[in-house]
Amino acid sequence: MNTRPAALADSLAARYDQVRAHTLALVAPLSTEDCAAQSMPDASPAKWHLAHTTWFFETFVLARHERDFTPFRPEFRVLFNSYYHAVGERHPRPQRGLLTRPSLDEVLAYRQQVDHRMLALLTSAGEDTSWRPLVVLGLHHEQQHQELLLTDIKHLLSCNPLWPAYEAASLSDGPSAGAPDTQWLNFNGGLTEIGHAGTGFAFDNESPRHQVYLAPYELASRLVTNGEYARFIEAGGYEQSAHWLSEGWDWLCAGGIKQPLYWQRNASGDWEEFTLAGRQMLEPTRPAIHLSYYEADAYARWAGARLPTEAEWEHAAAQHLQKNQQGAHATHETSCQWFGHAWQWTQSSYSAYPGFRPAPGAVGEYNGKFMVNQYVLRGSSSATPAGHARLSYRNFFPAGARWQFTGIRLARDVAIEGARRGP
Amino acid sequence: MNTRPAALADSLAARYDQVRAHTLALVAPLSTEDCAAQSMPDASPAKWHLAHTTWFFETFVLARHERDFTPFRPEFRVLFNSYYHAVGERHPRPQRGLLTRPSLDEVLAYRQQVDHRMLALLTSAGEDTSWRPLVVLGLHHEQQHQELLLTDIKHLLSCNPLWPAYEAASLSDGPSAGAPDTQWLNFNGGLTEIGHAGTGFAFDNESPRHQVYLAPYELASRLVTNGEYARFIEAGGYEQSAHWLSEGWDWLCAGGIKQPLYWQRNASGDWEEFTLAGRQMLEPTRPAIHLSYYEADAYARWAGARLPTEAEWEHAAAQHLQKNQQGAHATHETSCQWFGHAWQWTQSSYSAYPGFRPAPGAVGEYNGKFMVNQYVLRGSSSATPAGHARLSYRNFFPAGARWQFTGIRLARDVAIEGARRGP
Amino acid sequence: MNTRPAALADSLAARYDQVRAHTLALVAPLSTEDCAAQSMPDASPAKWHLAHTTWFFETFVLARHERDFTPFRPEFRVLFNSYYHAVGERHPRPQRGLLTRPSLDEVLAYRQQVDHRMLALLTSAGEDTSWRPLVVLGLHHEQQHQELLLTDIKHLLSCNPLWPAYEAASLSDGPSAGAPDTQWLNFNGGLTEIGHAGTGFAFDNESPRHQVYLAPYELASRLVTNGEYARFIEAGGYEQSAHWLSEGWDWLCAGGIKQPLYWQRNASGDWEEFTLAGRQMLEPTRPAIHLSYYEADAYARWAGARLPTEAEWEHAAAQHLQKNQQGAHATHETSCQWFGHAWQWTQSSYSAYPGFRPAPGAVGEYNGKFMVNQYVLRGSSSATPAGHARLSYRNFFPAGARWQFTGIRLARDVAIEGARRGP
Amino acid sequence: MNTRPAALADSLAARYDQVRAHTLALVAPLSTEDCAAQSMPDASPAKWHLAHTTWFFETFVLARHERDFTPFRPEFRVLFNSYYHAVGERHPRPQRGLLTRPSLDEVLAYRQQVDHRMLALLTSAGEDTSWRPLVVLGLHHEQQHQELLLTDIKHLLSCNPLWPAYEAASLSDGPSAGAPDTQWLNFNGGLTEIGHAGTGFAFDNESPRHQVYLAPYELASRLVTNGEYARFIEAGGYEQSAHWLSEGWDWLCAGGIKQPLYWQRNASGDWEEFTLAGRQMLEPTRPAIHLSYYEADAYARWAGARLPTEAEWEHAAAQHLQKNQQGAHATHETSCQWFGHAWQWTQSSYSAYPGFRPAPGAVGEYNGKFMVNQYVLRGSSSATPAGHARLSYRNFFPAGARWQFTGIRLARDVAIEGARRGP
Repeated sequence: MNTRPAALADSLAARYDQVRAHTLALVAPLSTEDCAAQSMPDASPAKWHLAHTTWFFETFVLARHERDFTPFRPEFRVLFNSYYHAVGERHPRPQRGLLTRPSLDEVLAYRQQVDHRMLALLTSAGEDTSWRPLVVLGLHHEQQHQELLLTDIKHLLSCNPLWPAYEAASLSDGPSAGAPDTQWLNFNGGLTEIGHAGTGFAFDNESPRHQVYLAPYELASRLVTNGEYARFIEAGGYEQSAHWLSEGWDWLCAGGIKQPLYWQRNASGDWEEFTLAGRQMLEPTRPAIHLSYYEADAYARWAGARLPTEAEWEHAAAQHLQKNQQGAHATHETSCQWFGHAWQWTQSSYSAYPGFRPAPGAVGEYNGKFMVNQYVLRGSSSATPAGHARLSYRNFFPAGARWQFTGIRLARDVAIEGARRGP
Repeated sequence: MNTRPAALADSLAARYDQVRAHTLALVAPLSTEDCAAQSMPDASPAKWHLAHTTWFFETFVLARHERDFTPFRPEFRVLFNSYYHAVGERHPRPQRGLLTRPSLDEVLAYRQQVDHRMLALLTSAGEDTSWRPLVVLGLHHEQQHQELLLTDIKHLLSCNPLWPAYEAASLSDGPSAGAPDTQWLNFNGGLTEIGHAGTGFAFDNESPRHQVYLAPYELASRLVTNGEYARFIEAGGYEQSAHWLSEGWDWLCAGGIKQPLYWQRNASGDWEEFTLAGRQMLEPTRPAIHLSYYEADAYARWAGARLPTEAEWEHAAAQHLQKNQQGAHATHETSCQWFGHAWQWTQSSYSAYPGFRPAPGAVGEYNGKFMVNQYVLRGSSSATPAGHARLSYRNFFPAGARWQFTGIRLARDVAIEGARRGP
Repeated sequence: MNTRPAALADSLAARYDQVRAHTLALVAPLSTEDCAAQSMPDASPAKWHLAHTTWFFETFVLARHERDFTPFRPEFRVLFNSYYHAVGERHPRPQRGLLTRPSLDEVLAYRQQVDHRMLALLTSAGEDTSWRPLVVLGLHHEQQHQELLLTDIKHLLSCNPLWPAYEAASLSDGPSAGAPDTQWLNFNGGLTEIGHAGTGFAFDNESPRHQVYLAPYELASRLVTNGEYARFIEAGGYEQSAHWLSEGWDWLCAGGIKQPLYWQRNASGDWEEFTLAGRQMLEPTRPAIHLSYYEADAYARWAGARLPTEAEWEHAAAQHLQKNQQGAHATHETSCQWFGHAWQWTQSSYSAYPGFRPAPGAVGEYNGKFMVNQYVLRGSSSATPAGHARLSYRNFFPAGARWQFTGIRLARDVAIEGARRGP
Repeated sequence: MNTRPAALADSLAARYDQVRAHTLALVAPLSTEDCAAQSMPDASPAKWHLAHTTWFFETFVLARHERDFTPFRPEFRVLFNSYYHAVGERHPRPQRGLLTRPSLDEVLAYRQQVDHRMLALLTSAGEDTSWRPLVVLGLHHEQQHQELLLTDIKHLLSCNPLWPAYEAASLSDGPSAGAPDTQWLNFNGGLTEIGHAGTGFAFDNESPRHQVYLAPYELASRLVTNGEYARFIEAGGYEQSAHWLSEGWDWLCAGGIKQPLYWQRNASGDWEEFTLAGRQMLEPTRPAIHLSYYEADAYARWAGARLPTEAEWEHAAAQHLQKNQQGAHATHETSCQWFGHAWQWTQSSYSAYPGFRPAPGAVGEYNGKFMVNQYVLRGSSSATPAGHARLSYRNFFPAGARWQFTGIRLARDVAIEGARRGP
């Protein structure tokens, strides 16, 4: 990426350059071997992320809009297709770790060549700009893979009994912060709107903006912390089926699950956590992360609360952020960890908004076809690239997924009686 | 059941007597061996249904409210518990078919004794009537098992290469009826209410009644027929991934699925269907049944439509039935197959209504703990006992379930442009 | 079987009548439901055993040698074929428990009719007697299923938490006997012969008789007892990988195996054993049974011994029984439990004798095609029908099989040094 | 390995140096990524082979016999233990491909340091030479891993849709040679001896040498060729259960197996084979390789022959090679492909020789504990290092293993009648 033109008049070109460079920065701490391995079918090798995000631009932009297009290597069309049936065959996902060829060097060369060609296209004076939204989509797609690259690497390193560190200080695992007492933020609800508004970029699944009716509700002012979650464990949370969804209890029993994914007790019986900076003592005031939907739901039930719906979350965050902007005082207490700490499970199954239409063409396979048996997460995590998330952003994972940076914000109904069971 | 008192002054006792007798009528065509076998983990032997529904009354009513209660046999408390953790241990579900003891005769004696004691309690002049809602719940519970008993027996008999019939004419597979052209029923939506209203019985998951906002929508005036579904197959519906949810396509590939559960081509290449009356030619005008959510969703997408939400379904059926009552002409054209033909998949994930509280005590395990990765079905089927279903009734099954009497009602958004692709 | 002719001049007819009647006697204590269930893929329902043994006579004798043959029911040809590819299709083994039709009554009628026809054939004065060896084979085949019927029923009843008894006193689990001290019987070995000799019936896998060379060896004078095996457990036998074959240790870990199949500690910590007479205190002097090859091998290694080869076993038993006959004093001490107590694992993989030829035709599928990854057991068990086993008899099961009546006879090399480690 | 002393007076040191250098030569064509990946649980990454063979010398020689021993890195003791329970814990085998750390460079440094220390020990003038047999064992152990390294790499590269080549010409897949007509070599058998004789190195499982009696038999003068095996396929060999062991047929059906592991038809319908030199046209005169025991057995049955026993193989090869030495004319026709072409399946289950004693200590886990459900292969393959195999050498694999260089030599009984079915 040293070949960056001195001045990029075109802001999309500048954005392209910046996003692509950030991906390379993320793999900088990794060895060639780190980049090649795949620790489970859900994860992909870093090398694959590097290639697949490049494949996106080559396939959806260059192949259609570059004059005299020839592919870098034709066989990459199959190797680095993720799931786009409309674009042809694809290499089976669980075997991505077996692709020792092409080498990392070849994949980096692939990136470099595609970047050159993309920048040439972006800075050319062509009249047809119909492809520019695809470039924007490709950059947001790349940012999604930037986060996946970190979660996949964290999982891979966690499988190594040497517990190697990705980086010196665990920046990507999230900011360390004191945890003030939880406040219950109160919202009246009523007939309101959610979904993408305005003209900026959004994925197709965030549209159309539409009306929803919300009963009055309350959301916690911050995420559940490690310390709070540890108390759930001490209270027998993983041993009493009453806290769990039936399927969650089966999941727990089948997997022999007794704590969050990366927690382990050390020889003294204290909790340690595997982080991107290696194994460390658990910090009680940081948000608890790497929790499945089942764990989030069980914790909420134990705490006498529930998970929010995605409409509640979006409505609350919108109101809250707007109020703060008006008041012009975004103190810590008012930040409320909406973004940048952990993806927040909602109780909303991932489904189409009323009037939803998938984008036309192959990119229409991007979102709609995953709308079953997944749950929506809102906000963003410490691993989410800057500028990627927004109020209407809908992340989604199956209920058993734990290798993402996923945490809990509690919600509760507003009821007349005050007393509740719970801790 | 020949010991029925001459006159049952108490209407609940009469209702008890009637529901319990209906269960026995359902097993009358079955041999002892038919009653004992279990064809898959999701299904239960008929004998188990007979015992478990009895266990419910013994455990939740007699054990708590009968003077000098002694259990019929203490070990039945574990054997015939389905999933109530709060009531203690339970026998593993996939091994229900191995319980050759107790024999069917013993289980029938168990029923008879519990019925005697229940009727004694029901007709006694005690002042404490706090347990009567539990009896009502037990009867609705038994009706649910009446339908499961039929679906489980149908599956068992379908596994037998002799394709034996349960009954002479396939009444339980649904009424045979001509299929008029589909009309699109139009609804304005707006802010409306769904959920159980009034004072009659309802399960906890139907409450509380609450407001929802609906965009304008249309529902088909009848269910998708066998003939229509067969055209989907002829058109390559099971061979083109574009019609399917990603998880649905994986499900189809893994199971080698090429048609609905009980369909088979005969030697002439014509479709036959296994029914409760044995193997028969497919009737093109009957509703297509035994479809998974994946199949229902794929058909809808292929047809240029979608599945309704549960709120749309309830709102539409309520309006429609009300209108007909006023007009006093329930012709075939206006019946619209809301009830009694097939459970109708909705795109709504099974989740808690705003303000939902599980019932207190062990019966609180009835519904809430299944609220993940299941989809709501509305209406009722030809196998649903009379008087069981209602407008607010929420049935639910996982997306891959096919052995229930499950079909498709199409929905679509009301949009300005009229043209759609489709069959 | 009340139609038995007053006098059966033909001894084969008498034998037929006796063996067939014994099978019916074995199912007499069972309910219709007991006869229909299948507890695991390796086991079959009693009803299936009743039908399959009948199918053998119908298919291999009547269909070929009865004038104007018509099958009892044509569809039984597929339903009750076990594994004979040459005879056509077969019903999948793991689904035998789903065949609720035909009913037990129909299967008993099938037996009765085939018995009539077989006895008619057997007592007719036809000149062609070529089929008589097939009848003899069919009777030995039926005796094998008599033993399987007992082991399969025992397994089924053991899966029932009520632990029902098959019979009042556990005759079929073997004679209760004091266990004298083990003697080491010494054999010189040398060039000797094994395999079927003479003119009596034998399965094809016992031939041809052939020479083998044996180094000097010793065999234990009786089987390992429950008490001895319990000491192996107390000594940590199931916790130390050093005693186990690598694959045996994997088998133990994967199955969470900590004791023989039917052993359980009671509330006092004492061993109980599930028997055909229900759950009983473990008798320390009876032979330990229901052991896998892995367990037998691990016990032998722990005891400083090894399992015998099948040639050693046959050579030793032949010499020993011959000596006793000459000496005419078969005291308990000299009986040595060769037969009638438990099948005895040998270290010999089940393979073809030099010069082995499978029997021609479909019955040639009887033995040869199982000659891989199974181990030979010699002797016979308490469940083996009288007159079934013989010196050259080769039973065989996979190394992990435990539901048969399988035990351990120790062997050791004759070496100059005397000292050995051991219990 | 550039630090090799100019003169290695000690021949064991020279041998050490030579064997260790050969391992490095084998990985020379591989990239860092190639060395790290694991294509299936049965295979190991090349990096792991490099480290594990080094671990053997560090653990069994240096740790016990080097003055002031300190391990290179203590954690390698667990990471690179293969299966020696007596030496402590070990890293789970299926996850060897996830060990991206230590890097290949670190592992090479590990090798270099251990080699230095081993050569220092080997060339020191110490009086205690008790450890020298362990060094010899370690070198034979390393040679075994040299062959595994090639088979594992071949399997890994075969999983890559680009079919990359390991080397330019497929030397390691075996010499290409014309295939003369098969002769049947005749052997009288009788009382003979097999097992390791003399003073050279042998594994414990080759001892003690012992007597066996062999009936007269014949062996084919060469291995079955690709062309012959292709005819078996054309004749429907993979479609007719009659040729197969019952377990083999189940294996074939479950895996959808229709040809040898690395065979594929090209667009013209001709057979191609994946080799270490990439994908190539099948050479009909080369020995067929990468066959399972099931396939070898099925081919032999189809051809009217059988597989040899290991005693037959050893006796025949010994006689034949001795005769040739005396006659001093090892023409091609007399070479008979005993060694250097393909490992030859025998029908002998891998078991202990009479009087077998495992070596004392941890190295006693080397062979004995695998003596169940594996079959003996004799000879050696094109991938076997020079000087590794011998007449009494016993290789062994489970019946379903196909990724080794395994082929077929036919045997048959000597019988009076001449006619046989077969091709």
